[in-house]
Amino acid sequence: MSAADPVNRLYITDTTLRDAHQSLIATRLRTEDMLPLARLIDGAGFFSAEAWGGATFDTCIRFLNENPWERLRELKAALPKTPIQMLLRGQNLVGYRHYSDDVVDRFVERSAVNGVDIFRVFDALNDIRNMKRSMDQVKNVGGHLQGAISYTLSPVHNTETFIAMAEELYAAGCDSICIKDMAGLIMPEATRELITGIKKTVDIKVCLHSHSTSGIAPMSYQAAIEAGVDILDTAMSPFSLGTSQPPTESVVASTQGTKRETGIDLLTLRKIRNNCLKIREKYNALVNPISERVDSDVLIYQLPGGMISNLVSQLQEQDALDRLDDVFAEVPKVRRDLGYPPLVTPTSQIVGSQAVLNVLLGGERYQNVTKEVKDYVRGLYGRSPAPISDEIRRLIIGEEKVITGRPADLLEPTYDKMFEQAKLAGLASTEEDVLTYIMYPAIAPSFLKGERKAEAIPSSEPVAKASSTVPSQMEVEVDGEIFNIRII
Amino acid sequence: MSAADPVNRLYITDTTLRDAHQSLIATRLRTEDMLPLARLIDGAGFFSAEAWGGATFDTCIRFLNENPWERLRELKAALPKTPIQMLLRGQNLVGYRHYSDDVVDRFVERSAVNGVDIFRVFDALNDIRNMKRSMDQVKNVGGHLQGAISYTLSPVHNTETFIAMAEELYAAGCDSICIKDMAGLIMPEATRELITGIKKTVDIKVCLHSHSTSGIAPMSYQAAIEAGVDILDTAMSPFSLGTSQPPTESVVASTQGTKRETGIDLLTLRKIRNNCLKIREKYNALVNPISERVDSDVLIYQLPGGMISNLVSQLQEQDALDRLDDVFAEVPKVRRDLGYPPLVTPTSQIVGSQAVLNVLLGGERYQNVTKEVKDYVRGLYGRSPAPISDEIRRLIIGEEKVITGRPADLLEPTYDKMFEQAKLAGLASTEEDVLTYIMYPAIAPSFLKGERKAEAIPSSEPVAKASSTVPSQMEVEVDGEIFNIRII
Ligand SMILES: [Co+2]
Ligand SMILES: [Co+2]
Repeated sequence: MSAADPVNRLYITDTTLRDAHQSLIATRLRTEDMLPLARLIDGAGFFSAEAWGGATFDTCIRFLNENPWERLRELKAALPKTPIQMLLRGQNLVGYRHYSDDVVDRFVERSAVNGVDIFRVFDALNDIRNMKRSMDQVKNVGGHLQGAISYTLSPVHNTETFIAMAEELYAAGCDSICIKDMAGLIMPEATRELITGIKKTVDIKVCLHSHSTSGIAPMSYQAAIEAGVDILDTAMSPFSLGTSQPPTESVVASTQGTKRETGIDLLTLRKIRNNCLKIREKYNALVNPISERVDSDVLIYQLPGGMISNLVSQLQEQDALDRLDDVFAEVPKVRRDLGYPPLVTPTSQIVGSQAVLNVLLGGERYQNVTKEVKDYVRGLYGRSPAPISDEIRRLIIGEEKVITGRPADLLEPTYDKMFEQAKLAGLASTEEDVLTYIMYPAIAPSFLKGERKAEAIPSSEPVAKASSTVPSQMEVEVDGEIFNIRII
Repeated sequence: MSAADPVNRLYITDTTLRDAHQSLIATRLRTEDMLPLARLIDGAGFFSAEAWGGATFDTCIRFLNENPWERLRELKAALPKTPIQMLLRGQNLVGYRHYSDDVVDRFVERSAVNGVDIFRVFDALNDIRNMKRSMDQVKNVGGHLQGAISYTLSPVHNTETFIAMAEELYAAGCDSICIKDMAGLIMPEATRELITGIKKTVDIKVCLHSHSTSGIAPMSYQAAIEAGVDILDTAMSPFSLGTSQPPTESVVASTQGTKRETGIDLLTLRKIRNNCLKIREKYNALVNPISERVDSDVLIYQLPGGMISNLVSQLQEQDALDRLDDVFAEVPKVRRDLGYPPLVTPTSQIVGSQAVLNVLLGGERYQNVTKEVKDYVRGLYGRSPAPISDEIRRLIIGEEKVITGRPADLLEPTYDKMFEQAKLAGLASTEEDVLTYIMYPAIAPSFLKGERKAEAIPSSEPVAKASSTVPSQMEVEVDGEIFNIRII
């Protein structure tokens, strides 16, 4: 590197403690395994360690009998030098429905107090109204606010619309912007255009978050590095690739001695990696080999990898696997009818289930419509990227009124009421526990009473059948109704 | 794509039929599984299908009881539209020692007659004198000549030396040039510099061949695409990544709608991939999960992935695994002493074994020297990239004379003599059989007499221990001496 080439440092967010294990071992990493790893990670010099939020909160309570707040405090103690980053689903927080503003405010405040430094906030529909309250509160509590754009491909999404969203996020006070490519669909050329475009328009750090599901992510990361991306999300190699992120070590090595050096030492990474190898051994039975390989169907159908296997298992249950190609053809039509939502939790499930219904019932489409699709058309999830046609709207909800305001404006404050409930039931002793109860009213009581048990880590050889070894689906209660969710 | 952006087509060499299964399932793919796959591959529109040479010839005879020449003819029939490409080790052909020129001439001629269209020729030391005879013969028989540069990192290898070699290859009549990065060491910036540099210097198609061992290859492929590489080597996704090539589908998809479009259809690739998935199922027990993952040690020690595991197993046998770090430190010193040979068959084995000896015997280095290192210092493998110091030379071969000419000049013609021998022994009925006999005099007799049996495809679950499931090492006879080779 000559003196004429100043370093324009590339920053790394390591996702090993959150997205990587969520993607490869169904979010099952225990706190006891996280802490020694976190202590090693702390020495690397990462921009941040993504370590909380997403599906980790739910999994702690549902499967691991761990207190997610306690985990956060312990992680904070293990990561004194490295900012802790969380993934926050906007008004959905770490749940699957909109929470009232008072709950959002308290949740963000408690997250910051217990250890979160950087909040990555997204909304499945890119409806900033669903992100605004939590974003404002991140600023109020002094956190680093990273606004995320849910990346997708459609006739109404393109570089210009994403740049426009980046401008809105910038105006909303974001400290950085993340391009969140949950399905691994972003191509190298689109990456370059989008990063260059955002950086030309707003003066802000840009992060790229992708998944290697389709095998494209490492190529797009290279394009991003050249286009001047500021931060890349990577995972330590034993938990990298497949449905997870590209490997940390490779991205670090690839930039050594160039203008985009990370300043991270490969021998330090080797120690972290060796620790990860041991952890991987322990959890090996949870790794579905399929999730580690390139899924090139993603390139053709543009569906997140998890959604494809979910459709397969839905059809298998109905003994209708021969209709898979019909469903693949129906999914983009349903998505079009619903105004091209990005396919991410919960929209991937909403679109997928309806496509299966449309195909299996035959005859007229939308003869039978799920409650979620009705709510979606009613506007209860927010504003769809493209308007829904009058014809489809009538087909689905008849002459019912559509909500055009911010969905959470319909919600009464709930914290105080739930606090009273929890107190009466002898459940909650802390504000954090009340928040846990509000997030998951169905399972939190048994957790808070200490009646739940941690599931065992399977020690057998991995079984090929996805549905049995990787609990990719879970039932959650939404407004009293059981909702089939696939975490992707 | 606007009219102002002419397409500068990217060509794809698919390696599924050769390097991919050599890298991931120890070269064990059977012809019966290759043929239906080849028929599908033929419809894709690849620049070529790498399908013969490398370790496939040896494995056919040694493990599969298959006639490699018959395989070639059958592949040719299955690939009427797609050129068949082979990997040829220069004067070593598909063996592990230099053959006399008359054998080289006949081997190349018979390869072309039986179906090879494109010959990729390389030498482990980049000594073009070891490549010249076979290259001339490729031109004589009307084949496409692709000269390969064995890529490595060292104080005497850099962009300039590689460009100088490209010029020599161009002057030698090559139709295209391949940057052969067998260890997956080439970084994105070096890729760009090298491709740009070669294309500026000589007017010739440039191909990049890399392995994903270190996780860098997909990033370097992206840099190569932008730098104007003409051909990329890829493998169908079920046999991609890890120690194999980046995925074909991903590279094709990543360039769709750009100036570097491949013209290859993703739905056609899907059919090929579905066939590959079935094959992979059949051979699954041969896949070492380790070989599918990123090996970030490659980034630190710059050793091919296979060489690291080979050193581990050598030390394990000696109950001296605690000396691994010492051996890792010794390997670069031995390599320096020997003039920085690229580490590829057979130099990786030569350097590795000597490093183990130097460490385990303690005291003075080179107290005990392998026959291969002596021969290497004698000049019998060709010219080392950097000169060997007088001190090291004396330490290893005393005052013995060093050969400075082309090693094969020392070899008498052998074909006629071996043909007589084979006839007397009742072994060979065709010229091809005689060549098989010359390649592998120790095992060919039992093969040619029909006394060998194909090994069974293991049906059990994969076992973690590399040495037992993936026969990565084999013993070959070189000049009557048993030589321990690891195919990488
Ligand atoms: Co993610
Ligand atoms: Co190779």
